[in-house]
This record gives sequence, structure tokens and C-alpha cells, in this order.
Amino acid sequence: MLCVGKNSANEWLDSIEHYAKRINLYAPFEVDIISDSKTGKKSIPSQIKKAEGQKLLQKIKKGDVVILLDEKGMAYNSLSFSKEIQKYQNSGTQRLIFIIGGAFGFSEELSSQFPNKIRLSDMTFSHQMIRLFFCEQLYRAFTILHNHPYHNS
Amino acid sequence: MLCVGKNSANEWLDSIEHYAKRINLYAPFEVDIISDSKTGKKSIPSQIKKAEGQKLLQKIKKGDVVILLDEKGMAYNSLSFSKEIQKYQNSGTQRLIFIIGGAFGFSEELSSQFPNKIRLSDMTFSHQMIRLFFCEQLYRAFTILHNHPYHNS
Repeated sequence: MLCVGKNSANEWLDSIEHYAKRINLYAPFEVDIISDSKTGKKSIPSQIKKAEGQKLLQKIKKGDVVILLDEKGMAYNSLSFSKEIQKYQNSGTQRLIFIIGGAFGFSEELSSQFPNKIRLSDMTFSHQMIRLFFCEQLYRAFTILHNHPYHNS
Repeated sequence: MLCVGKNSANEWLDSIEHYAKRINLYAPFEVDIISDSKTGKKSIPSQIKKAEGQKLLQKIKKGDVVILLDEKGMAYNSLSFSKEIQKYQNSGTQRLIFIIGGAFGFSEELSSQFPNKIRLSDMTFSHQMIRLFFCEQLYRAFTILHNHPYHNS
């Protein structure tokens, strides 16, 4: 999971770490955070997105599969999302990167380069909260695939 | 917001209270919790749902408007959800009750009595987490209606 913005501001950091540990029981999982590019009140959203997009691109290596968490993305339910994860596992994907953008979303460059997009909800949630939602959902996906009772609770 | 299950188990209690306080800046908002009806390993889901449904019904007074948070409910985006809230405010609704069910969902009795259902996501989240999601979304709705900058952050 690759995110934009400071981690220290996230009040759900403990919960995110809790899920990250549990995800690691099934597959190696890391959270990486690049700093956001807000430089002051006069910052222009398109410039911020572009700067963040460039920082994000530096994190991506050849062979990585990238999925953007985007409000215009495909909606999955928990079961179909777990099947997506399984599909990537079965196809020998070395590294699957889910990117959660900053406050202004993704740059055009990033968005067009990575057309694979998913959305967690039709509703807009804070970018900090999306990290928590996503980690819970990814953990849930693995519990579904491994028939662990968590996903029925 | 009316919920089923122990509050003490909710690791996001502080965050929920934080949003509850902020919602109260716009409208009186209370969280009420009835205990779940798990009585042991041999409990039958349909019986649990029925028992919980009866406890929930006792909380509802004449004139209350009830909306169930249900995975089969209508999907809203944050803007259309805020307009729903506004509609209820403008129609003089005395008390609007959002019910988050227990682990097994709602009883048939409750579900058929209250056809007004919304869903936050196609994905399944833990019942504890839904409380946090919902409070954030209700707060967001009021910030949209009052043009508070939160909803753009």
C-alpha cells in the first residue's frame, strides 16, 4: 500500500498496523508513505497532484502491478475483491501496489498510466480513513481465500 | 445511531465520539447500543436476529423515521446522502434513527417493517467499523450542507 501524506496525522495508525500484521500472515505486505506536496495556501491542486505523481512514480519498479484507489474505479464486493487478489497471486505477480492518493487525487499522468482502478465506496471518505478501510478489506480478502472465520464475523 | 453489540469492544470508540461531538454542532446526535443476543455456540442466527430485532423495536417510538444500514440498501455518494439528510430536516422529521445491525444482520420482521435501507459500500466491513464509517459520513453530510471546508479535505 502506497500512500500520500504524513503518517503521524493518522489516528488509526495502531489499527492499520494491526491489520498489516495480520495480512502478513498470508502475504508480505508493506505500507509506504510519500510526503504530500502542499507547500502553502497558494498551492495549485494540479501542481500538487503532478508533484505527488512524480514522487509516486519513483516508487514503482518494472514488473510491478499498480492499482489506484479511485472514486471513479470499479466497485467490488468483498468476495469479488478477494478473487481479484487470488488472480494476481495465481498469475505470479511479483509486487502488487495499491496507491491511495493525496487530498487532490491523482495526476493525469499517473491516472492514464495505470488504468486499473478500484473504489471502496461511492461515498467519499478522508484519505486517512481510506487506509484503514483498505487494510481491513485486504485482510478480509485473505480470510475469505483461506476460509478463516474472520470474514463471517 | 442505534447499534447492536458491546461498545467496549470498539477500538475506534474515541474516533466515533470525536465525530459524534462534531455532528452535534449541526444537529442533536446520540449513539445508543443494545446488547447482542449471542448466547453461546449453539445459538441459531435466525433466533439471534429475532431477539435483537425485538430489542431494537423497543427503542423506536411513534413518529421516528428509521433507516437500516444494510448491504442490500441504496448506495449514495456523499453529496446525495447529504441531500437525504436535508430532506429529512426539511420535512420536520422529529427523530431519524439509523440502525446498524448485529453480526447476523436484521430480522425479517425489522427488515420488512423498515424498507428504507442504505449501504455505505458494496464491500462488507466489520460491524464495529461501520459505526466509524457512518459517523464520519454523517459528519461529512453536515459539512457539505453547511459548506464547511472539511468535506473538501
